Amino acid sequence: MRVLVIGGTGRIGAATVERLRRNHEVVVASRSGDAQVDILDSRSIERMYDEVGAVDAVISTVGATPFPAFAQSTLADFQQGIANKLLGQIDLVLQGMTRVQDGGSFTLTSGVLARESIRGGAVSSTVNGALESFVLAAAAELPRNLRINAVSPTVVEEALDAYGTYFPGFAPVPVAEVARAFEKSVDGIHTGRVYELG
Amino acid sequence: MRVLVIGGTGRIGAATVERLRRNHEVVVASRSGDAQVDILDSRSIERMYDEVGAVDAVISTVGATPFPAFAQSTLADFQQGIANKLLGQIDLVLQGMTRVQDGGSFTLTSGVLARESIRGGAVSSTVNGALESFVLAAAAELPRNLRINAVSPTVVEEALDAYGTYFPGFAPVPVAEVARAFEKSVDGIHTGRVYELG
Repeated sequence: MRVLVIGGTGRIGAATVERLRRNHEVVVASRSGDAQVDILDSRSIERMYDEVGAVDAVISTVGATPFPAFAQSTLADFQQGIANKLLGQIDLVLQGMTRVQDGGSFTLTSGVLARESIRGGAVSSTVNGALESFVLAAAAELPRNLRINAVSPTVVEEALDAYGTYFPGFAPVPVAEVARAFEKSVDGIHTGRVYELG
Repeated sequence: MRVLVIGGTGRIGAATVERLRRNHEVVVASRSGDAQVDILDSRSIERMYDEVGAVDAVISTVGATPFPAFAQSTLADFQQGIANKLLGQIDLVLQGMTRVQDGGSFTLTSGVLARESIRGGAVSSTVNGALESFVLAAAAELPRNLRINAVSPTVVEEALDAYGTYFPGFAPVPVAEVARAFEKSVDGIHTGRVYELG
């Protein structure tokens, strides 16, 4: 298969690229990859798909959200996180569903905060919960036997130095396990599934 | 208690107002209620809270989303549903959390599509999933012992004529049961809960 990994230069993205390269041709898109893309810009997504050409699977490991203390958070914080990690990934699907090969797949990234709370995590929880219900709904209506799933990881072991204090007592997951979940989605037959890691 | 019901003129809102009036003073806000509000407009929400004054509980039964067939849906459809039912209700909480009395509560409305799919339902699923994770996260960080829950109803029995064909085989819930869930949230001690009806 030919697999497009958007965000393939991040920690989870790079591990996913490494794993999928064992059996697939992988094209990396990011602000600095084989193809350039800014998921905040619909035209940039369109250009990326044009540039990359035919693919059988699209993996997204992109998306950032702010982490303001809830009592100080503003509507703008929610708008920012939604525009980036939520609408950015939805746009990848909306534009990709006419382009990905018949029977192909989308695999998005949500996260443990869909089902857990941490200090400052309300924007991320909102976005991740949205993505998981989006995947459920989109799976039932995608044309041409296209599939869609989400990988929903907790904090990754290799990022504990940077993020561990935000996830006190959360058991981390090795990044290789997250990459394996993307492989399960791409090479398997599931659709409408959320792979919860942690 | 003094309870503000935003959207109290809709079907679920009116039933909720009727039930809560048995034991509480209820103020209705809507485009045409005791107080006027347009949840798409942050300034309008601010004016509503100013006008209504001190309240112990805020109930929201507002929020609309478009229902485009997924294959024809656009990013604008998602933006529209998010701005209305998701960000409109989040804004009610963000502005309300400095105003509602100590120990007071917010109760929002999500919906069955957070966990179910129907034709054309992807925007609504996305928004409802977001609201349910938002409630989980916000509950853990709200100041002054404020509480927050969501009521997540399936199609209501009294609306089957209008919406039944969109929910084939879904067992409907009487609107009085939905109103009862709002009472449970307001008068109980729960926080971070989603009351699933159907």
